[in-house]
Amino acid sequence: MEQLTSIHNQHVKDWKKLQTKKARRQTGTYLLDGWHLVQEAYKAGIDLLEVIGTAEQLSAHPELEGMANATYEVTEEIMKHITDTVTPQGIAAVVALPDSHRLPVEPLHGAWLFLDRVQDPGNVGTMVRTADAAGFTGVVVGQRSADLFGPKVVRSMQGSQFHLQMFEGDLQKWVADFKAVNAPVYGTQLNPQAKNFRTVEPKETFALIMGNEGQGMSNDLLSQTSDNLYIPMRGEAESLNVAISAGILMFQLNQNLD
Amino acid sequence: MEQLTSIHNQHVKDWKKLQTKKARRQTGTYLLDGWHLVQEAYKAGIDLLEVIGTAEQLSAHPELEGMANATYEVTEEIMKHITDTVTPQGIAAVVALPDSHRLPVEPLHGAWLFLDRVQDPGNVGTMVRTADAAGFTGVVVGQRSADLFGPKVVRSMQGSQFHLQMFEGDLQKWVADFKAVNAPVYGTQLNPQAKNFRTVEPKETFALIMGNEGQGMSNDLLSQTSDNLYIPMRGEAESLNVAISAGILMFQLNQNLD
Repeated sequence: MEQLTSIHNQHVKDWKKLQTKKARRQTGTYLLDGWHLVQEAYKAGIDLLEVIGTAEQLSAHPELEGMANATYEVTEEIMKHITDTVTPQGIAAVVALPDSHRLPVEPLHGAWLFLDRVQDPGNVGTMVRTADAAGFTGVVVGQRSADLFGPKVVRSMQGSQFHLQMFEGDLQKWVADFKAVNAPVYGTQLNPQAKNFRTVEPKETFALIMGNEGQGMSNDLLSQTSDNLYIPMRGEAESLNVAISAGILMFQLNQNLD
Repeated sequence: MEQLTSIHNQHVKDWKKLQTKKARRQTGTYLLDGWHLVQEAYKAGIDLLEVIGTAEQLSAHPELEGMANATYEVTEEIMKHITDTVTPQGIAAVVALPDSHRLPVEPLHGAWLFLDRVQDPGNVGTMVRTADAAGFTGVVVGQRSADLFGPKVVRSMQGSQFHLQMFEGDLQKWVADFKAVNAPVYGTQLNPQAKNFRTVEPKETFALIMGNEGQGMSNDLLSQTSDNLYIPMRGEAESLNVAISAGILMFQLNQNLD
């Protein structure tokens, strides 16, 4: 076990850089901050490439050394520096990004959430977490959404990334793939043809698309959906937060958990 | 119209102080930041005690002077200072807090949301906004929840406070009042007696209690509820964000908008 005390150490610099998308892509890794995430990763059989802990945490949990490929003891100052957290728990791990070039398990099956240019990291993370709780199979994030493995998204996902199939990709292609197997793709733009979400007969395999916080879904995608759903509400439309709408729709459409 | 250029001006200091609960209570006022909130307040017939704008916004909207009891032209620096916003829109207003000593319209009627020690301002604001969209009648915030009129809550409510009856109060008393008129009060704690939320027959008058993010509802309240509801989900319980759970439950329980 290596002991690091300076924030100028090269390891520390490398971990800090994982806050940027560029460094995550270059190294193919991202950082998990805190006990819950590290444990969720371990339970899911994810390789802990590097475990980083304060002296206090590492000595309280000697089992960590056996769990990790490499273990580093760092100061609390370093921990704050690399996690960008005011009061970090004193434990973090570096794990591999899921391979974004792999293909989904064929045939396409189950409930999927597609995110079309959702910008806010908290919204993206919360929707992934909610998709997990709602028993969804996978999440696909299109281009120009918040990066799935940035620190805020990872914090909001709370480990749900280990329970779902996670992809980044071209949503147009994903929509076409679902339609090719006769699975409905539901848009969520209010328009005159939109259907009350409670009138949709839930199916086992489908995709739900949530759009940008301000502008909603892109027109290109909208023109390809099987149906558009709306949530009847008082007052003006668009008055629900996108993550709240997603939660209501996901639990309505995927009721096979009852 | 008074023109202010210094952040040391007494008006500016007073507005800045409205970021604290103490000053809001002492003055009986709070601050609305941005066009949407100011317009929502005006549409709802709320007195705009003071309108504060940059030269650019005030000259583009001469109608503002007629809408407000008093108008102040300020610099962008002052605007940033009092709103605590990086890029404020250049318009704000001071309005009165709702009278927390008034009583609800009798008889108790409609769907109500009770918040028991919900800590996160964004969660509180989002739940109020969602209650509005779901056609709820009122929201009651118990002690030790985030203050309803702090800047972050106000930002997240997006003006929904003007469409709902809003109270701060003793939730024990409110629960007793609902039960006295035979209206169900639904708790949201997972326990062996909890009911799947989809099996509840929606009623016109009821209250739904959402609890603290970490600890859930207080036991005192829990012992008084008519029923406890749970949302069936994959994996461990408590794995939904409280605002997401509230959204799913509110739209399930209050379907009279369809």
